[in-house]
Amino acid sequence: MFETIDVERLRSGHGVKWGSVPPDTIGAWVADMDFGVPPAVSESILRLTRHADFGYPYWPGDDPVIEAFEERMVTHHGWRPEPGRARVFTDLLQILQVMIEYATQPGDGIAIHVPAYPPFLASIARAGRRIVPLPMTRGETGWRFQTEGLVEHLREQGCRMLVVVNPQNPTGRVFTPAELLALATAAEELDLVVLADEIHADLVFAPHRHVPFASVGTAATRTVTATSATKAFNIAGLRCAVAHIGPDRLREALDRAPLDFFGTPSTLSRVATVAAWRRSDAWLAALMRTLERNRRLVQAWAASLPWNPHYHSPQGTYLSWLDFTASPIGAAGPAEHLERLARVKLSEGAEFAQHTTVDTAGFARLNFATSTSNLMEILDRVLAVRS
Amino acid sequence: MFETIDVERLRSGHGVKWGSVPPDTIGAWVADMDFGVPPAVSESILRLTRHADFGYPYWPGDDPVIEAFEERMVTHHGWRPEPGRARVFTDLLQILQVMIEYATQPGDGIAIHVPAYPPFLASIARAGRRIVPLPMTRGETGWRFQTEGLVEHLREQGCRMLVVVNPQNPTGRVFTPAELLALATAAEELDLVVLADEIHADLVFAPHRHVPFASVGTAATRTVTATSATKAFNIAGLRCAVAHIGPDRLREALDRAPLDFFGTPSTLSRVATVAAWRRSDAWLAALMRTLERNRRLVQAWAASLPWNPHYHSPQGTYLSWLDFTASPIGAAGPAEHLERLARVKLSEGAEFAQHTTVDTAGFARLNFATSTSNLMEILDRVLAVRS
Ligand SMILES: Cc1ncc(COP(=O)(O)O)c(C=O)c1O
Ligand SMILES: Cc1ncc(COP(=O)(O)O)c(C=O)c1O
Repeated sequence: MFETIDVERLRSGHGVKWGSVPPDTIGAWVADMDFGVPPAVSESILRLTRHADFGYPYWPGDDPVIEAFEERMVTHHGWRPEPGRARVFTDLLQILQVMIEYATQPGDGIAIHVPAYPPFLASIARAGRRIVPLPMTRGETGWRFQTEGLVEHLREQGCRMLVVVNPQNPTGRVFTPAELLALATAAEELDLVVLADEIHADLVFAPHRHVPFASVGTAATRTVTATSATKAFNIAGLRCAVAHIGPDRLREALDRAPLDFFGTPSTLSRVATVAAWRRSDAWLAALMRTLERNRRLVQAWAASLPWNPHYHSPQGTYLSWLDFTASPIGAAGPAEHLERLARVKLSEGAEFAQHTTVDTAGFARLNFATSTSNLMEILDRVLAVRS
Repeated sequence: MFETIDVERLRSGHGVKWGSVPPDTIGAWVADMDFGVPPAVSESILRLTRHADFGYPYWPGDDPVIEAFEERMVTHHGWRPEPGRARVFTDLLQILQVMIEYATQPGDGIAIHVPAYPPFLASIARAGRRIVPLPMTRGETGWRFQTEGLVEHLREQGCRMLVVVNPQNPTGRVFTPAELLALATAAEELDLVVLADEIHADLVFAPHRHVPFASVGTAATRTVTATSATKAFNIAGLRCAVAHIGPDRLREALDRAPLDFFGTPSTLSRVATVAAWRRSDAWLAALMRTLERNRRLVQAWAASLPWNPHYHSPQGTYLSWLDFTASPIGAAGPAEHLERLARVKLSEGAEFAQHTTVDTAGFARLNFATSTSNLMEILDRVLAVRS
């Protein structure tokens, strides 16, 4: 039975989601958190379920998901979306793939910071577009990318689109206004469409601050802002996302598509998203305190390692990008190694540079959105491992 | 607040869903039922919600929705889908629109029985394809369509696709094997892709029997079978549907599309669909007894009318197609008339022939999936109305 498997498997592995891994393995290779969901989210679902209210998702007036999105951008991120430009999809990966199809042609270059969320690289490659990596390199103070010569580089590479994942996955960088402006300026110079994936925007550690790409300079008219409540509020399975489509031509092209071509999220997913965005900030604040504690734990652990991981704490997300190059594990496939020898499941670094020549083979990504005890066990096991 | 509106509005109108109608109006213009949902459906949702289990919808092995679909087709409808051909979408309208885009070109003719579910006509017209109506006419024993000369007619009209909605909405016809064979033969002769919308297949009144189009003759290889649990189990808002794609070329074309292009249903919608298809047959049997009672009530009412409605009871669905042409209401816009004068909300007949020259202006569609008392009140009000 699906439900049985669904619940039991999900909870037995201490955060291991659906991998075919031995039962004593801990860690997580997908970006869910182990913290349940906000009470307002459960309550909204329970309420509709108690009323057996699963009729067609019609309502008077505008889509409540859009309204909640527009309001939250103003209240939480200081950006006022333009009315009539937001549109509901089921997920961010869908939004990326739709924008690739509608805004670019096969063979076009699409720039993206690398390491990158693996399905994004896979999506660009599968669409027959060229990945133009903007390598994240380690500076004195953290992960950075080269803004000098950006325009020339993107022009030479035949770029038509720029994907800005901010906060960045997997480095956890929250880009500064200066970095965003450099990207926006290059995009303007080359008339690029920008896909701004801001799915982790609500998961930023003070004193860092999320700045919506569409609010930078004149970027609004060329930016598709994609977000959802699924990451910050831990409801990835509910599949409900929003794209705010700045470019007129893109919006018109999408308006010409069949009205239901891209599917539509369920009523439950919509009420959950509204409950998350409108009535779950106390839960989110508590979550951020937990994530901050875990983030420091990882930081302290990294500082105590017998090898130098050159570690930089994430500024947002619940992800740590770990360098095992100098570790006893050796330089290639640390996640595979750790799973086999330490029964810890991380995400393999090489995946985050697939289809590019960027070398991330010595890295692995850790999801620290789990209980402190589970996290400590994970870190202990990694520390104890030998090659 | 969305949830407040959602629940309160939905329940205040005795089945009037989201219309801007006076509060004392009864009836329904969308195809939801007023009967709640099967217990297994609620329980599956409550279980995941209690566990706050909204992580990514990954599971070991095949998609449980597909497995439940494949099994149900065998056990309930005597048709064995070919493994590897079923694919999950969010809804039937999406499936229709996707198949139109992938199987036909602008200007192509698409045949469909008329009167038809209005969004289907709207979808064909909006896609720039030509609706080729197969008019449903009233014979001695019920609604029928002309099978003689079908091939020539479809050839003359430049048809590339045939949409077979069976059970038919709004007439409630359950097509006979002979009718289906005539359609299948014509499709083969002209090498048409057939979209078989069988969303009402579980709502067929004995002694009628649903025959999947794909099981007729050699139709399987040219048929896209589209269905979902949303109608029979009253979960339209959950948005989860299945298309079984018989034609190789169409399947290959869809396989070339970006993997997440069409979005994906939520985890809750999937478990609800599985619970409906696998563990809700007792609920469905009870539902069918209620619908049968209501169907007879409408039949008796129609027989007692002071005008002759030439009424034919539906063989499936919970919809009655009512002819008001000879009624005191007059021949045009009966639903508008009834809403204004009798505070009853039916679906306007003209909608069901939009973009065609078929005349259904004197008709209205009644949804009888409501309590017997509510239905009696609806029927009384209609009977009492004067022009
Ligand atoms: C940066 C980023 N974008 C997108 C996604 C996926 O979003 P969705 O599940 O809505 O496709 C993730 C999931 O981890 C992510 O980290
Ligand atoms: C025959 C028929 N097909 C399709 C639909 C719509 O299905 P969905 O909500 O999955 O788009 C309906 C809804 O009433 C219908 O009657």
